[in-house]
Amino acid sequence: MPGSALRRTAKRLLAALTLVATLAVGYAQAEPPAITPEEFETATQIYFDRCAGCHGALRAGATGPNLFPDRLSEKGEGYLEAIIYGGLPGGMPSMGAHGILTMEQIDVMARFLLNEPPAPAQISLDQILETWQVHVAPEDRPSEPQHDLDWENFVGVILRDMGQVAIVDGDTHELVSLVDTGYAIHILRSSATGRYFTAIGRDGKASLIDLWSDPPEVVAEVKPCYDARSIESSKFEGFEDAYAIVGCYWPALAVVLDGLTLEPLKMIGTAGYQRGAGDYVEEARVAAIVASHYYPEWIVNIKEAGQTWFVDYSRLDEPGQPMAITMLDTDLFLHDGGWAGDRYFVVAANALNKLMVIDAQERTLAAEVTAGEIPHPGRGANWVHPEYGPVWATGNLGSAEMTVMGADPEGHPEHAWQVVARVEVPFTGNLFLKTHDNSPWVFYDSPMSPSPAGTATVCAIDKVALETERCWEVPGAQELGARVVHPEFTRGGSEVWLSVWGSMNEPSFIVVYDAITLEEIDRIEGDWVRTPTGKFNVYNTAQDVY
Amino acid sequence: MPGSALRRTAKRLLAALTLVATLAVGYAQAEPPAITPEEFETATQIYFDRCAGCHGALRAGATGPNLFPDRLSEKGEGYLEAIIYGGLPGGMPSMGAHGILTMEQIDVMARFLLNEPPAPAQISLDQILETWQVHVAPEDRPSEPQHDLDWENFVGVILRDMGQVAIVDGDTHELVSLVDTGYAIHILRSSATGRYFTAIGRDGKASLIDLWSDPPEVVAEVKPCYDARSIESSKFEGFEDAYAIVGCYWPALAVVLDGLTLEPLKMIGTAGYQRGAGDYVEEARVAAIVASHYYPEWIVNIKEAGQTWFVDYSRLDEPGQPMAITMLDTDLFLHDGGWAGDRYFVVAANALNKLMVIDAQERTLAAEVTAGEIPHPGRGANWVHPEYGPVWATGNLGSAEMTVMGADPEGHPEHAWQVVARVEVPFTGNLFLKTHDNSPWVFYDSPMSPSPAGTATVCAIDKVALETERCWEVPGAQELGARVVHPEFTRGGSEVWLSVWGSMNEPSFIVVYDAITLEEIDRIEGDWVRTPTGKFNVYNTAQDVY
Repeated sequence: MPGSALRRTAKRLLAALTLVATLAVGYAQAEPPAITPEEFETATQIYFDRCAGCHGALRAGATGPNLFPDRLSEKGEGYLEAIIYGGLPGGMPSMGAHGILTMEQIDVMARFLLNEPPAPAQISLDQILETWQVHVAPEDRPSEPQHDLDWENFVGVILRDMGQVAIVDGDTHELVSLVDTGYAIHILRSSATGRYFTAIGRDGKASLIDLWSDPPEVVAEVKPCYDARSIESSKFEGFEDAYAIVGCYWPALAVVLDGLTLEPLKMIGTAGYQRGAGDYVEEARVAAIVASHYYPEWIVNIKEAGQTWFVDYSRLDEPGQPMAITMLDTDLFLHDGGWAGDRYFVVAANALNKLMVIDAQERTLAAEVTAGEIPHPGRGANWVHPEYGPVWATGNLGSAEMTVMGADPEGHPEHAWQVVARVEVPFTGNLFLKTHDNSPWVFYDSPMSPSPAGTATVCAIDKVALETERCWEVPGAQELGARVVHPEFTRGGSEVWLSVWGSMNEPSFIVVYDAITLEEIDRIEGDWVRTPTGKFNVYNTAQDVY
Repeated sequence: MPGSALRRTAKRLLAALTLVATLAVGYAQAEPPAITPEEFETATQIYFDRCAGCHGALRAGATGPNLFPDRLSEKGEGYLEAIIYGGLPGGMPSMGAHGILTMEQIDVMARFLLNEPPAPAQISLDQILETWQVHVAPEDRPSEPQHDLDWENFVGVILRDMGQVAIVDGDTHELVSLVDTGYAIHILRSSATGRYFTAIGRDGKASLIDLWSDPPEVVAEVKPCYDARSIESSKFEGFEDAYAIVGCYWPALAVVLDGLTLEPLKMIGTAGYQRGAGDYVEEARVAAIVASHYYPEWIVNIKEAGQTWFVDYSRLDEPGQPMAITMLDTDLFLHDGGWAGDRYFVVAANALNKLMVIDAQERTLAAEVTAGEIPHPGRGANWVHPEYGPVWATGNLGSAEMTVMGADPEGHPEHAWQVVARVEVPFTGNLFLKTHDNSPWVFYDSPMSPSPAGTATVCAIDKVALETERCWEVPGAQELGARVVHPEFTRGGSEVWLSVWGSMNEPSFIVVYDAITLEEIDRIEGDWVRTPTGKFNVYNTAQDVY
C-alpha cells in the first residue's frame, strides 16, 4: 500500500508539527507549575493523609469541592497557598496557621494541585501483608489484667495530630499509657469483651491495643488502606473479638481482619453502582460500620454507592470462606450513625439532610427522616422521654438544632421515626452529642461553628423539656484557639469529658464536668494533651451506651 | 519568591525542550500508525464484538495474549494484518478468510492495535434504559400458544454471524421462525416455564423470545453491556420467569432484569479482589450463570475474581431491594459449567485444568478435580454408570480426553469427585458434549481441533464401557470449511443434532442423527442456515437435561 503509506507519513508529520505548535502555545499560556517526582510523591502522600477525606482520593470532590487543575488554575498558586495556610470558613482547616504543614509543604501542595492528579493506586493483599505486624502474639498475652486498674472505665483519647492514643483512667483521670498509632486516628472501637481497643488512622493504619497489658500497648497493627475512617469488631455471640473489619476511603474497599492478630483475611471491593442501579462509582468510600446485635454480621455503609451492606462473618473458617453480603439501597452521602435501641441503626445521608433508619433484624430500610441541615449524629443519643417513649437524637452541622425523633415502633408507633422536637441551640457546627441514663442532659458541642465563641461552647439540653438548659464557653479554650469537641461519659455516667482541641504546638486540656450539676470538676492536663479529639470509654463503647 | 519563580521558569524551559527532543527521537523510531477518530471508533466497536472475548476489554489478555502496542509494535502492521486475516492454530479465528471482517476493516484493526487502547467506557442505568424496548407488553401477549406446534420440542439455533436465532420444530425439522437478536449470540436459556427463550449477544444485547406467539418473536430487548456471554432466568418456585440476569464481560457487571419486560432493575458491580483477597481486578468478567434449585438465587461465576456468587432475587420488591450475595472463593479462570445432578454445580477453572464442584445447598466448595487440559464442559453430561453410580463428564479443549468423575457423594462416596475414567478420543479441540437418558452415547465434538478432519468429526462414546465407540466425519462439512459443533437432543432424546458451522457467505446445514443407531436421518438445510452454532431444545434447556 505505497499510497496509503505516503498518506500516513504525511499525517504523522502534520501530527508532530501540530503537537509542537500546541506545546508552544500552551507553554505561553498556562503551563502547570513544575514539580519534581520527589515533590509529587510527597504531595501525593500529604494529599491522602490530609486532603482526601474531604476532597476525595480522586480529587473529584466530596464534602469539599473538586480540586482539579482546570478549576484551580484560574485561582492561581498564590491563592492556593493562602487557603492552605489559613483555611476557609466553610470547613477548610488552617493547615499552616495550626502548624500541620510547613511553608515548604504548602508550596509543594499548591503546585501539586495545579498539576493533573496521579492515578490513585490500588492495593493488593501482598502489600497489606507487608504492613502487618504482630508485636505480641495472642498466646503471649496475659490471661488476666496485669494491673489493678478498672480497665472497663478506661477512656481512650485520640491525640489527632500526634499519631497517638492516650489511655486515661476514668476513675483517677491519670494517664495510664500513651501508645503510637496511625496518623490522625479517626475512631476507636472496643472489642466485644472490651479488652481491646481497635484504632483506625486516616492514613489507613489499624492498631490493636491490649488494655490488659501493663501498661496498655499496641499488640498488632496493619495498614489495609491509604485512607480510612472506620473499624469495628465482631460482637455476636460465639464470635466475640474473633474478627475486625476496616472500612477504607481509598481504595474502595473493606478488609476483614483476624480480631486478635489483625491478619488480613478478606478484601471486599466496594466500587459499584449507585443504589444498586445508576452510575458507576469508582470511589465508593466506606463510612460508619457497626456490629449487628441480631446476626453475626457488620452493618457497613457505602457512602457514594448509597448502600448499606450487611456483611456476614460467620463462615470465614469454611473452605472457600463463603461470605454473604446483603446489599440494601439506602441513599447517597452515608456518613456516621449509631443505634436507636438494639434493633435500629440510624445513619445520616448527610448532604441530603436525611437520616436512614435501618432495621437490623429484617435488613430493611425502616424509614427516612428529614433532620436539620447536614445531620452529624456521631453515634446519636438515646433516652426514654415521658411522652414519646424511646427517642433518638442527632446534632446538625449546618443548622442550630438538635433533632429528636421517636424510636419505638413497637411501643409508640404514632411517634416512631417522626421528628418530635427540633431543639434550638445557639450555634451551628455540631459534631457530637452524647447522653447517659444517669444524666438528665444531652451534651452538645459546636466545634465547627464559624464563630470562635461557638467552637468553645458546650450545651446541656434537657431530655424531658426538650429545651436547651444552658450553654457555656469552656474557660481557656478560646485563648488556645481551640475547639471544644466530643462529649463522653465515664462508666456509670457521673462525669462527662470534653476535649479542648488546640494546636499540636502547645498542650491543651480535657475538661471534666459533673454530669448532673454541670459543674467543672477537673481538667486533665499535661504535656501529652495535644490535639485531643474523640474519647471512648471502654464500657460505654463496648456496650453501645449513648 | 522571585528566586524560586526563576528556577521554575528555567525548569519549565528545560522540560519543554526535553519533550521536543523526545518527540523527535521517538518519531524517528516507532510512531504508532495514524488512525482517524472515525476509524478508531469503528475499531473499538469491532474489537468489543470480535476480539475482547479472548483478549479482554482492556486488551490485557485472557484466553488470548495481551494486545498492548509495546508488545505488538515489534511484530509490525503487516504481520498483524496477516494474523487477523488467516488466524492462528492456537485458536485465533481467521477473520478475513471466513468473511467476518473486510480487508479494509483488517487494515483499521491492525493500526488500532498498534495505538494505545481506549479507556473502556463504564455504563449507567440511564444508558441501559435508552436501549430498553418492549415490543409486546406482557398484558398484550397471548395466554396460550397461538399455534398447534409442540413448542416444548422447539430448538433454538444460534446463527452466530447473522445476528439471528432460528426457531426450528423438533418434530418436523421445519423452520418456525427467524428472529433478529443481538450480534453473535453466545447462548440461549429457557425461562422456567419454557415459554420464553432469553438470548444474549456478545455485543451485550439481551432478547426475550416468546414461543407462544405465531410466529415466535422478540417481545423485549435491552443492552446492559458492551460485551456479554451469559443470561439466565429465575426458576425457583414462586419466581418462575419473574426475573432474568445478564452477566457482562464488560463493564464488570451483572444486571438483573424484569423477566417479562427485560426492564433493568439492579446493577451488581463485579470488579474486586481475586478470591476475596489478592490483587484488584478491574476486568472481572461474568462467566456461566445458572438458577439454583435450592434457593431463589442465581449461581454467578466471576472469572478473573475466582469467585462464585450466589445472588438472591427474592426480595427485589421490598423497599431498598435488599439483595443477598454470598461470595464463595473458588478459583481463577472460571468459565462454563453445568449441574451434576440437582445439587452440585460444576464449573471449569479452565486455564488451571480444574473443575470446581459447588454445593448449591450448602453454598460451599465441595471439591476440586483435575480434568484434562483446558476443560470446556459446556453444561457437561450426566448419566448413571452401573459401577460408579451417577457420573458427570466434561470434554477438554487441550487434550484428547473426555474426563468422567463420580458425582454421587451420598450413594457412592468412594467415587465422588474422583476421576473414574479418562476416555481417549481422536482429537483435541472439544467444545461440547451431550447425552440423554434415552441414548447409550455421549456425543462429543472437536470443532477447535487444529486438524481440518478433527473439526468435522463427531464421536459417540459408550456410557457403560467408557470407551469411544465410533467417530466419523460429517460428510460435506470439510468441503464447506466448516466445524461440526454442539450436539443437542430433541425432547425425548431420540435424535441428536449437530451444527455445521461454516462461513456466513454460504449456507451450511444441521445434521440429525438417530440417538441410538447413530445413523444420519436428516439434514436441516435452507438459505437461512448460515453459521449455525449452539442449539437449545426448550424442554431439555428448561429442565436441565444433559
